[in-house]
Amino acid sequence: MLRFDPAEYALRLAKTKESMQEHGVDVLIVPDPANMNYLTGYDGWSFYVPQAVVVILDEEQPLWIGRYQDANAARATTYLEQRNIYAYPDVYVHADILHPMDYVANVVTERGLATRPIGVNMDAEYLSPRGLAALQNNLPDANFVDTGFLVNWVRAVKSQHELDYMDQAARIIEHVMQVAIDAVAPGVRQCDAVGKIYQAQMSGTEEFGGDYPAIAPLLPSGPGTNTPHLTWTDDPFRSDETTILELAACRHRYHVPMARTVHLGKAPKRLEETSKIVVEGIENALAAAKPGALCEEVELAWQRTIQRHGIVKESRIGYSVGLNYPPDWGEHTMSLRPGNKTEIRPNMCFHLIPGLWLEDWGVEISECFRVTEQGAQPFCNFPRQLVIKT
Amino acid sequence: MLRFDPAEYALRLAKTKESMQEHGVDVLIVPDPANMNYLTGYDGWSFYVPQAVVVILDEEQPLWIGRYQDANAARATTYLEQRNIYAYPDVYVHADILHPMDYVANVVTERGLATRPIGVNMDAEYLSPRGLAALQNNLPDANFVDTGFLVNWVRAVKSQHELDYMDQAARIIEHVMQVAIDAVAPGVRQCDAVGKIYQAQMSGTEEFGGDYPAIAPLLPSGPGTNTPHLTWTDDPFRSDETTILELAACRHRYHVPMARTVHLGKAPKRLEETSKIVVEGIENALAAAKPGALCEEVELAWQRTIQRHGIVKESRIGYSVGLNYPPDWGEHTMSLRPGNKTEIRPNMCFHLIPGLWLEDWGVEISECFRVTEQGAQPFCNFPRQLVIKT
Repeated sequence: MLRFDPAEYALRLAKTKESMQEHGVDVLIVPDPANMNYLTGYDGWSFYVPQAVVVILDEEQPLWIGRYQDANAARATTYLEQRNIYAYPDVYVHADILHPMDYVANVVTERGLATRPIGVNMDAEYLSPRGLAALQNNLPDANFVDTGFLVNWVRAVKSQHELDYMDQAARIIEHVMQVAIDAVAPGVRQCDAVGKIYQAQMSGTEEFGGDYPAIAPLLPSGPGTNTPHLTWTDDPFRSDETTILELAACRHRYHVPMARTVHLGKAPKRLEETSKIVVEGIENALAAAKPGALCEEVELAWQRTIQRHGIVKESRIGYSVGLNYPPDWGEHTMSLRPGNKTEIRPNMCFHLIPGLWLEDWGVEISECFRVTEQGAQPFCNFPRQLVIKT
Repeated sequence: MLRFDPAEYALRLAKTKESMQEHGVDVLIVPDPANMNYLTGYDGWSFYVPQAVVVILDEEQPLWIGRYQDANAARATTYLEQRNIYAYPDVYVHADILHPMDYVANVVTERGLATRPIGVNMDAEYLSPRGLAALQNNLPDANFVDTGFLVNWVRAVKSQHELDYMDQAARIIEHVMQVAIDAVAPGVRQCDAVGKIYQAQMSGTEEFGGDYPAIAPLLPSGPGTNTPHLTWTDDPFRSDETTILELAACRHRYHVPMARTVHLGKAPKRLEETSKIVVEGIENALAAAKPGALCEEVELAWQRTIQRHGIVKESRIGYSVGLNYPPDWGEHTMSLRPGNKTEIRPNMCFHLIPGLWLEDWGVEISECFRVTEQGAQPFCNFPRQLVIKT
């Protein structure tokens, strides 16, 4: 079930170790499921209990440490040798006294690493303060270093094989978005439209099946369009109301998201006009996203566009996207916003989503793109405009 | 959009404050989305950035603190007054220096609570070590107390209105499971079956639409049935292979899960026999789940059954279930396993899932039940057996 060649995992590991050396750590404890997958191939919905991959500078393979009943999943989905798969018994699960990170610390000790400098992302999803304390209490002679989003940064530039999966996800989301637009109609229950969206997300195309996206369909409708992260209700869509569709398709955990806004009936002038400004802003931002540009310069191109039209937006307009698990398809590295000085490089991938949420209405139109030597190249071929269904 | 009467939220808050007093804290910082929903009604897929509800002993309403663009969702989905809704600007999102918990700490200070004892669940989902450090650094005069899963424990006993939502979810999952069983057939791609499952989960019934479950459909098939948390692939189901279906339906964030095992073709004798033992064990465990019994006694009834048949299972056989968000529909309170001395009380709800994952095969049959004065009462009416499709 490995999704990439062993050589690709070896390269990821080599880059990770290079970064570990720059951070001065010999051991890296990685509890984030996307990073675990990236380094070993591990894939399973087991991240509701603590687990980790441990990268050791002077060992060829990382270790996988997880729950006993998930060790078979590690055998099935990773390239790891049996001796590098460690499974903790169920007494560690959701328990008052024992914590899975006690077990992880014991493995680190058993492998003779208890006095080595150890890197951890102190802001990782799926690492709690108690989990960190368990590591530190059991490894009192280790020096813990906050290595931040080290592996996420290694993930920022994609390989051709990763881009292939995102291209496959793009074919799926083009279909999904059309299904969604078709499903939004007066009198249709929102939950029924979402049922069709999910079916399209999973069935994918004839060639490529879909995987579960890291975020549920976001579907603010009617008065809810001023708030981006609402899901759906049993209510029917209504004529003369607007619905925002923020969806993604996922292929082997790689995401391509897309947002569009649908109006049922004659669109209000402010919605039509603002949508055109958003599209103009997207075009200008895409034109600015060339190798060598800084993330903030992409935002500036957008900002200049909307300022000309007297519009203000306080939030970032995009972020790095790719491999992930719930709760986020963003990679927590680059953000397209003022002050972000990260240089844009070929094969970085972004979701450019300059959503506008105003007093009592909103609009979202987005574009997911990769960076090529020539500049931004959208993954999808889908009309970039407000959708009006009369 | 409030899903419960204001009186019900007031009762939940009163119970939470009672428990806070027992723990000796005046302030409780609650970052877990299920607990945020439970206390205020807040519902949105915004938990990929840090956010919190803050309960203050001597104030009537809690505070909601989240991202600026999500404040409209707080206005739309909670009963909170505007003055209790705090929104941090986007510069706090996925940033190197600022952290949303800096902002939370500033609000705590602004409300005059900087020297009061503050409770936090140090093992909460969605609270990172850096998040806790941000709270502690900004509130150096506060005494932080690990109050554990305090709100989760308040959630353990359900109200009638909560049970009503779970009954509605039960109607949905009965339908979903039948759709799933019908969809698993030789030559059908797994991803297409999952598409139909998701559609049924969301469309629900004519009366009740579905919400997204906290866990994706789990669907180990063929050689994968020895591992519980695999999702699906593009591969077709094959004759003479077994598939495990672990699914849930969700209604207003309340879950009723169900697992069944489907075999395509003549079932191997060991699978048929083991399934009968599992069903017998479930019956005995259900009979033991009476008010006043301890959680471990339910597991013992199961254990005695399988021991008679020479079967060994190392993991817990069930857990508290109800309101939740990804990544788990379990509530992280009661586990049905040796050593768990929690007394079973009326209106507690459990997912009894004594999955067996053996060397190279497995079986799962489960039952979600509530506790009544008379004992366990399953939510669903669905044949409790191995499904054989010839």
